[in-house]
Amino acid sequence: MSIDLEIARAATLAPITRIAAAAGIPEEALEPYGKFKAKVGLDFVGRVRAERPLGKLVLVTGINPTPAGEGKSTTTVGLGDALNHIGQRAMICLREPSLGPCFGVKGGATGGGHAQVVPMEDINLHFTGDFHAITAANNLLAAMLDNHIYWGNALGIDARRITWRRALDMNDRALRSVVGSLGGTANGFPREDGFDIVVASEVMAAFCLAHDLDDLQQRLGRIIVAQTREGKSVTAADLKADGAMAVLLRDAFAPNLVQTLAGSPALVHGGPFANIAHGCNSVVATKLGLHLADVVVTEAGFGADLGAEKFLDIKCRLAGLAPDACVVVATVRALKMHGGVAKSALGHEDVPAVKRGVVNLARHVENMRKFGLPPVVALNRFNGDTAAEIQAVQEAMSALGVEAILCTHWADGAAGAVKLAEAVMRRIAAGEARFTPLYPDDMPLADKIGTIAREIYRAREVAIPDAVRAKLARFEAQGFRQVPVCIAKTQYSFSADPTALGAPEGHVLPVRDVRLSAGAGFVVAICGDVMTMPGLPRVPAAESIRLDAEGRIEGLF
Amino acid sequence: MSIDLEIARAATLAPITRIAAAAGIPEEALEPYGKFKAKVGLDFVGRVRAERPLGKLVLVTGINPTPAGEGKSTTTVGLGDALNHIGQRAMICLREPSLGPCFGVKGGATGGGHAQVVPMEDINLHFTGDFHAITAANNLLAAMLDNHIYWGNALGIDARRITWRRALDMNDRALRSVVGSLGGTANGFPREDGFDIVVASEVMAAFCLAHDLDDLQQRLGRIIVAQTREGKSVTAADLKADGAMAVLLRDAFAPNLVQTLAGSPALVHGGPFANIAHGCNSVVATKLGLHLADVVVTEAGFGADLGAEKFLDIKCRLAGLAPDACVVVATVRALKMHGGVAKSALGHEDVPAVKRGVVNLARHVENMRKFGLPPVVALNRFNGDTAAEIQAVQEAMSALGVEAILCTHWADGAAGAVKLAEAVMRRIAAGEARFTPLYPDDMPLADKIGTIAREIYRAREVAIPDAVRAKLARFEAQGFRQVPVCIAKTQYSFSADPTALGAPEGHVLPVRDVRLSAGAGFVVAICGDVMTMPGLPRVPAAESIRLDAEGRIEGLF
Repeated sequence: MSIDLEIARAATLAPITRIAAAAGIPEEALEPYGKFKAKVGLDFVGRVRAERPLGKLVLVTGINPTPAGEGKSTTTVGLGDALNHIGQRAMICLREPSLGPCFGVKGGATGGGHAQVVPMEDINLHFTGDFHAITAANNLLAAMLDNHIYWGNALGIDARRITWRRALDMNDRALRSVVGSLGGTANGFPREDGFDIVVASEVMAAFCLAHDLDDLQQRLGRIIVAQTREGKSVTAADLKADGAMAVLLRDAFAPNLVQTLAGSPALVHGGPFANIAHGCNSVVATKLGLHLADVVVTEAGFGADLGAEKFLDIKCRLAGLAPDACVVVATVRALKMHGGVAKSALGHEDVPAVKRGVVNLARHVENMRKFGLPPVVALNRFNGDTAAEIQAVQEAMSALGVEAILCTHWADGAAGAVKLAEAVMRRIAAGEARFTPLYPDDMPLADKIGTIAREIYRAREVAIPDAVRAKLARFEAQGFRQVPVCIAKTQYSFSADPTALGAPEGHVLPVRDVRLSAGAGFVVAICGDVMTMPGLPRVPAAESIRLDAEGRIEGLF
Repeated sequence: MSIDLEIARAATLAPITRIAAAAGIPEEALEPYGKFKAKVGLDFVGRVRAERPLGKLVLVTGINPTPAGEGKSTTTVGLGDALNHIGQRAMICLREPSLGPCFGVKGGATGGGHAQVVPMEDINLHFTGDFHAITAANNLLAAMLDNHIYWGNALGIDARRITWRRALDMNDRALRSVVGSLGGTANGFPREDGFDIVVASEVMAAFCLAHDLDDLQQRLGRIIVAQTREGKSVTAADLKADGAMAVLLRDAFAPNLVQTLAGSPALVHGGPFANIAHGCNSVVATKLGLHLADVVVTEAGFGADLGAEKFLDIKCRLAGLAPDACVVVATVRALKMHGGVAKSALGHEDVPAVKRGVVNLARHVENMRKFGLPPVVALNRFNGDTAAEIQAVQEAMSALGVEAILCTHWADGAAGAVKLAEAVMRRIAAGEARFTPLYPDDMPLADKIGTIAREIYRAREVAIPDAVRAKLARFEAQGFRQVPVCIAKTQYSFSADPTALGAPEGHVLPVRDVRLSAGAGFVVAICGDVMTMPGLPRVPAAESIRLDAEGRIEGLF
C-alpha cells in the first residue's frame, strides 16, 4: 500500500454535511453521494451568486513538469489547509481525475502525503459519475449523427468531413482509430471514426466553461460535428442533440464538495485535458468557491506556460475572473533536471545544476508578471534537498524580488505551508494584482498564437502553413475571431521540443493544425503530437488491483 | 408531458432514510445518493443474511408481450403497494432501466400511473451509476485484452477467435460492427470488433447472479474472452483483469433503495437482457428483500416462457431461491391481439377474440404449475375493456382453477390491487408451492434445451446443427455440463416465429448457435435473431428532450 493511501485510510473524515455547514452551505442545498461526498445544488449556487461578494482568487501553477515530480496538487491542498490554519476562510478548487489512467500507471490525482483530498479512492474512481455523464452526452451526439445519416441525411453531412469522435474514460489504444458501421445495410454507412479519452471531449471543455445550465445547453448546441459538401458547419443543435445532452449533464453540472485531510472544504469538479483543452476545473465550482470563501486556491494543469496561460487567457477571460495572486511550484529535484541532471543522478547535491535549472522557474515567474499577477514561489521540499541547493533557488528568486517559500505540507500538512500562506496573504494585502489577459479579444487568431509564442514561450517565430492559415481565416469568417486560442503542445518545455529543458528561446513554434471548439469557445492550435487516447503500459496497474477478503481495494495506489 | 410523469412529479416523496427505517434498514447502513435514492451497504446486507429468516417470494410474470402493452412492472409495483396496504410488510424488487433506450423511443421502465417507483427521471437516467460502472468493467477487460496482444501476446490468443466485445449504454447501430486498432503500429493489430448495449454484457449477468463481492470477483475471472490457436479458452483471470473489474463494481454491487408513489420500499438493482441473459434484478437485492420483508414481489422480463423460465431455472436455481406464488399479468387488449385482432381494431368489443387469445394466458398458467408454483392471474384493466370480455377471461381461468383478478392499480394505486394481494396471500397461506426447476443440473446441455422447448414452448423438436452440437460437447468437456441454459428467442411467441401468437405447438425450435457465459454461469442457446445493440429510430425521442428555463427535464417521457 502506498504511503498516500495509508495516510488517507487512517484519516477520520467529517460528515460532508459538517464540512458544508462550515463553508456556508446549508444541508438543504446538498445532494449527498454517500457520507463524504456531496453535490451542491444549482439553486443554491445561483442564490449565492446573487447575494454574496467574491473572495480572493489564488492560482497555483508550476514549472515545466519533469519525471522528478513537482507536487502542484499537493501544494494547492497544502496552501488551502494552511490558509484555514491561519484563520482565513479558504476553499480549494481542483479538477476531477480521470478514471482510465488509474489502470495504466499507478497513482491518483488527489494530492499526496498529508495534503490530500479525500475520500481518495472514490474521487479517483467513479466519484459522483460526472465523467460517465459527459461520456454519455458525447456518445449520444455521435449516435444521433450517424443515425441522421442512416435515415436519409437531410442536413447533407459530408461523411468524409465528420470531426466528432466518440469517447470513453479508458486508456484504450485499440479505439484510437476504427472503421464503424460495418456489417451491412442495417448498420449504416461505413466510415472512419475513433475514440478519445473523455477528458479530451469538447463536451468536457464546454461543461467546465459554462456559466449555468442554460449556457451549457447553448454551448452544447454550438459544437460543430461535421461539414456539408458545401463547407457549411453542422452543429449539435442542427442534429437536435443539444437538449438531450444537457439533460444527461444536468446533475453532473452541480459542483462536488469533498474535504481535505485537514478538513478544508474542496470543490472537485470537471477535468478537461490541458493540451487540446484548457485544463482547469469548472467555472461553476470556482465561482461558487469565490462567493463562499475569503480565499479560493485553485490549480491549472501542466506548467505555467500551458496551464496558467490557459487558465488566465481562456477561463478567467471567459468567466470574468481576476486572480489576486499566484503561486509557482518548484522542487529542487525538478530544477536540477532542468539544469541537465538525469533522474538517476538526483541523489547527489548539485548546486551548479540548480543554478542552471532555476532559469525555468525564473521565466515562469516573469511570465506571471506579464499577466499582472504577483507571484510567490512554493519550493516543495523533498528528502535529500540540501540547504545549499535550497539557498540557490531562494537567492535566484530574491534577485527577482520574489519570495521562495520552503514548504513541507506533504510531510507536515497545514503547518508545513503556513509560511507560504502568509506570503500569499501579504501579496493579496498589498493589492498588487492588475490582471490583464495577454491579448485582446479582437486580435486576429494567428496573432493571438503569435503573441503567446513570443511572450510566453519566447519563440522567435511561429510557423503556420498556408492551409492552416486558411482554416484560421475561415473560423474568423464564421464569426469566431473573438475567441481565445488554446495551444496544444508538449508540457515538458517552453518550446515544442520536449527535450529542450531549462529556458529555451529563439525557437520556432510549428502550428500543425487548428481546430474550432465552438461549443467550448476557443480555437485549438496543435503544435506537436497530441495524444487524445492513451494506451496501457506493458504491465498495467490494473493487473495488481483487486478486492481483498473484506471487500477493500488493493493495489490501486 | 406524459400522465405518468405528471403523477410522478406531483408526488411528495419521503426522505429515503424514512423509507429505509420502515423497511428495517438503519441510517448507518445507507449510502445516500441525493435525498431519495440510497445504496444499502454490503456490510448490512451480509449481517441480515446471517441474522434474519427469509420472507415469501412472489414472481410477477406475463403473457407474451404485444404492442397493446401488459403492465408487468406496473402490476409488480401495484401488488407490492397493495400488500403493504393490507398490512403485510412487502418489498418490491425490480430491474434498473437502461439509459440508452430513453433516447430512442419515449418511455421509461419504472411502472406507470399510480403504480410507479420514484424518482422516475433519476432511475431512468444515470440513477446511482451502476450501469456506467458495468460499462467501465466490460471495457477495461477489452482494453486489457488488446493491450496483452499489443505487448507480445504471451497467452497466445488467436485474434480471430476473440469473443469479448466492448459495451456502451447507448442505442448506436454504428458500433455493432467495427474494425479497431487501425492507424499503424502504435495502435495495435487491426481486428474485427463490436459493441453491445451494456445490459447485454456478461458482466451485467455475472453482477446480477453473484452472491457477494468475492463470488463476483471469481465470476468475473471465469469470463471467457477468446481462444488460443490450440482451442484453449482465455479468461479474464488469465488477463489479470478480474480484480480491477471487481474494484470498478464494488460500490455498484450494493443494492439501490427507492420508493413507490405509495411509499413502499423498492430495491431496483441490475438489469440484464432477457434474451441472451436471464432478465431479472440482482440476486443480492432479492435476497436482501427476502431477509427484510414478509413478502417480496419481483418481476421477470418478457413473457413467462422466457422471463419466468429463466428466473426459475437460472436465478432461483443458482441462488437457492424458491418462490411461493406467481402472478401472470394479462390484459384484455393483449389477449385480443393473441386472438388475431390488429392493434388498430382494439377499440371494439370482441369476446370471441378474447376467447381465442386466452389460450396464450392459459398455457403460461399451466407452465407455472410445471414449476410447482400456484398461479394467480392479474387482469390489468384498461379503459374500454368490456364486462363481457373480462368475464371471458375469468371463466377461462376459472375452468383451470385459477383466480383472475381485475386490477386497477394504474388508476387507483394500492387500492386497485388489494384483491390481487389478497388472492396472492391466499395462495401463500395454502402452502401450495413445491418449486422444482424444470430440469436437473446434470442433464446434458442439449437435453436441457430440448426439455425447455418441449415443456414450455411446446415445440415438436429442436433443430441443433452438428457444429452447434459439437460446441455443446466442448462446453461439457470443459466442465460446464452442470450449468443451466439461457434461451435467446423472440419474446412475442412461444415459438421462434414472432408472428405465431396465441398458443402455437408442434413447431421446431432452431438453435442457431450456442455460447458459453462461464462468468454468469450459463450456456446461451441462440434461437433466432438477437439484437444486442439497438439503433435509434428515424426521429429519436432525444430530439425533443431538453432542459427548460428552470433546469427541469422536458420531453423525456
